[in-house]
Amino acid sequence: MSDSAIMQLKQDVYDANMALVQSGLVVLTWGNASAVDHERGVVAIKPSGVAYDALMPENIVLVSLETGEPLPGETMRPSSDTPTHVHLYQQWPQIGGIAHTHSRYATSWAQACREIPCYGTTHADTFYGSVPLARPLTPEEIDAAYELNTGVLIVEHFRENDLDPSHVPGVILSFHAPFAWGKTAAKAVEHAIVLEEVARLALMTEQINAQAETTPQSILDKHFRRKHGENAYYGQPK
Amino acid sequence: MSDSAIMQLKQDVYDANMALVQSGLVVLTWGNASAVDHERGVVAIKPSGVAYDALMPENIVLVSLETGEPLPGETMRPSSDTPTHVHLYQQWPQIGGIAHTHSRYATSWAQACREIPCYGTTHADTFYGSVPLARPLTPEEIDAAYELNTGVLIVEHFRENDLDPSHVPGVILSFHAPFAWGKTAAKAVEHAIVLEEVARLALMTEQINAQAETTPQSILDKHFRRKHGENAYYGQPK
Amino acid sequence: MSDSAIMQLKQDVYDANMALVQSGLVVLTWGNASAVDHERGVVAIKPSGVAYDALMPENIVLVSLETGEPLPGETMRPSSDTPTHVHLYQQWPQIGGIAHTHSRYATSWAQACREIPCYGTTHADTFYGSVPLARPLTPEEIDAAYELNTGVLIVEHFRENDLDPSHVPGVILSFHAPFAWGKTAAKAVEHAIVLEEVARLALMTEQINAQAETTPQSILDKHFRRKHGENAYYGQPK
Amino acid sequence: MSDSAIMQLKQDVYDANMALVQSGLVVLTWGNASAVDHERGVVAIKPSGVAYDALMPENIVLVSLETGEPLPGETMRPSSDTPTHVHLYQQWPQIGGIAHTHSRYATSWAQACREIPCYGTTHADTFYGSVPLARPLTPEEIDAAYELNTGVLIVEHFRENDLDPSHVPGVILSFHAPFAWGKTAAKAVEHAIVLEEVARLALMTEQINAQAETTPQSILDKHFRRKHGENAYYGQPK
Repeated sequence: MSDSAIMQLKQDVYDANMALVQSGLVVLTWGNASAVDHERGVVAIKPSGVAYDALMPENIVLVSLETGEPLPGETMRPSSDTPTHVHLYQQWPQIGGIAHTHSRYATSWAQACREIPCYGTTHADTFYGSVPLARPLTPEEIDAAYELNTGVLIVEHFRENDLDPSHVPGVILSFHAPFAWGKTAAKAVEHAIVLEEVARLALMTEQINAQAETTPQSILDKHFRRKHGENAYYGQPK
Repeated sequence: MSDSAIMQLKQDVYDANMALVQSGLVVLTWGNASAVDHERGVVAIKPSGVAYDALMPENIVLVSLETGEPLPGETMRPSSDTPTHVHLYQQWPQIGGIAHTHSRYATSWAQACREIPCYGTTHADTFYGSVPLARPLTPEEIDAAYELNTGVLIVEHFRENDLDPSHVPGVILSFHAPFAWGKTAAKAVEHAIVLEEVARLALMTEQINAQAETTPQSILDKHFRRKHGENAYYGQPK
Repeated sequence: MSDSAIMQLKQDVYDANMALVQSGLVVLTWGNASAVDHERGVVAIKPSGVAYDALMPENIVLVSLETGEPLPGETMRPSSDTPTHVHLYQQWPQIGGIAHTHSRYATSWAQACREIPCYGTTHADTFYGSVPLARPLTPEEIDAAYELNTGVLIVEHFRENDLDPSHVPGVILSFHAPFAWGKTAAKAVEHAIVLEEVARLALMTEQINAQAETTPQSILDKHFRRKHGENAYYGQPK
Repeated sequence: MSDSAIMQLKQDVYDANMALVQSGLVVLTWGNASAVDHERGVVAIKPSGVAYDALMPENIVLVSLETGEPLPGETMRPSSDTPTHVHLYQQWPQIGGIAHTHSRYATSWAQACREIPCYGTTHADTFYGSVPLARPLTPEEIDAAYELNTGVLIVEHFRENDLDPSHVPGVILSFHAPFAWGKTAAKAVEHAIVLEEVARLALMTEQINAQAETTPQSILDKHFRRKHGENAYYGQPK
């Protein structure tokens, strides 16, 4: 892997981690972002427990996409959530970046063990349907390999519920917090921001109307397709 | 249209868009402000999907008030909500600016499909009565012309409910978000700020007292007339 | 009145108005602070409807404590709430400053028409008992002299309920918002900040426990007396 | 005690107090942080009622760990909560710093007189189980020695409920507010931040699901042990 490619990957992941903080999604050190280079088989991720204001691009840790182990020469320990990230990259070649936070509203839905209903177009623009809730890990799964099995659980949940990670770019984990992803680390951060925002709107929507109804299918379809697919017309032509 | 008039219109709309962001009403790119020059038949509006920190006054797109199409020479795509804005300007010559956001509290009332009751003088100072709720579009209206029909629906709602857009300078759209307007783009932004604030106060009012009553008519009248009409005495003499 | 005394009074009121904004209690132009010089019979108050970022110390308007009319030479219109301020100063010589805002939590309690219960020591440190709620004005009182009668109503409420404005430095007005006061304009602002904070804590307290009990009398007495009266021991010796 | 050791202790406590403010946990002067030098028998603590923007490292007051009285030469009055801090240091030699705030969410749980349930991993990472609630002091305890008895009550509550202050680094006091502690003043501040955050998440969790369940024991154990004890693997090797 060339020096400049390594440096760019580390820089992208550094930028994504700092964007998480600047977006107000992170308290203390509770969050991490990563990116993958599928071709070279390398994942770049935040080091574990490092304060954001002490983080530098060169601290970003490179690990093997195949084994999840740090590449030779790496001296810092990667995020404790690395096995989760690596498993998602292994199973979902269509994604290029992942962001994990304990953002307040999404985490509260996760703690409440409820999926986040789609109550409006703000949600439908990015998530095609509810933000799904993955079940708690069993004591056996926790003992065996907590972080790896978190990844396994997410992929299983999407497979069993016939969800496409490109159309539903995030999940909340029971008693834990959200993960979001996208084609790049920057897109993963953007989706983490949207997830937090729709979690916030959904709570307030229910507070205003305890019998609130979810968005009609016709509006859900329209808004998702305004931004996605071949007939998308939101934004500037690429 | 003279160069200086064009530049001023674009600058006003740029300023209004940036004011939306500075007021905390906008997350990511979810918002847009526009202004119209009724005499020249020109509407100026934010380009679609452009990040606010990359926006410049010259990026503001000019479209025809008659057709809603970009004027010759424009290279950027206008906001996807342009047909909504243009229809309101066509039907309501008394307004000169429009602001659309997904601000949190107003959007939550929109998602909850409830109009916002007038619970106090903060509301009555700007909105004479509830902030109205427009019904969801039908699948047929969505398929035919989503954004145009959003504008048609707003104007119909005001006509059928005998509401004066000068006395009720905003609306919330079911499952979507708010629109606000005023004599200028700057006034539209101010009304978007008020709409968000009264949406926030109304939610908290109901949380404090589930049987809260709306403002008595005498207080509603007094506060609206302190600021509007020939006997207004709030602010400095014009 | 000497030039330097005038300038200091205007500066104090300017500083208090800006402190309201910096404390996050004010949206747009919804707030005003004043101070009185009882000896000279002069009240200084914010001009009506002037944006805070355009406000300068010399814009502060001087009005007569006796008549409430601007002193000769004043060119700007004083706050529309001036008659309320002047009446309180006339009736309560022990206060020297007043702050009025539409701060979110206090305003929501006012809109909900509930007094703010004392749920803890944060409240008891400043307000000896509930923050009182004044009733809505009648249509006749509104028509006759809205702002003056607001002041009359506050003073009546304190008299009829045997409340001491030195021990209960604020009130909320039904369907409207809070007023706070103190020995100086700076103290009035501080009490406006406390009022907003205890309004916020009280709402959340009830959300956490719908049967929350108010602070026991022994704790209320202890905390109020830690900060007030001859045995106070909070803060540095004066 | 050497000049440099004194200066460092004061600087650490100054830094901790300023970190409380920068973290948004403190309104006005409602908060204080302290540290102890167990070997030298000295506690350093914020002076009472001093505004944070006027605070300087040299204002931090030194008091005796044995008597709680200011050391000879100290001219400022220490925080009125000093007897609480000193008693905790006397009883719990394993802690080195204490932070007290009236942070909004933790204070609301305290006012609601409910312990804060552990609803997820954000909580379990720092607090092994609920954040405990200490009962209100009796009128007799208040009259005899309010602040000292607050400390006595905290220590008793932990002893009677078999709680380890190293595993549960904070408490909320009925009708009052939280205290947090740690090995250093900086750690105490960090735990005060976590306590506020989990108080906030817990309220929202219950708002989303009124029947929310607490974190399963297996997840609680896993998360606490990821960060604590000999098999901890979060963060960088020490």
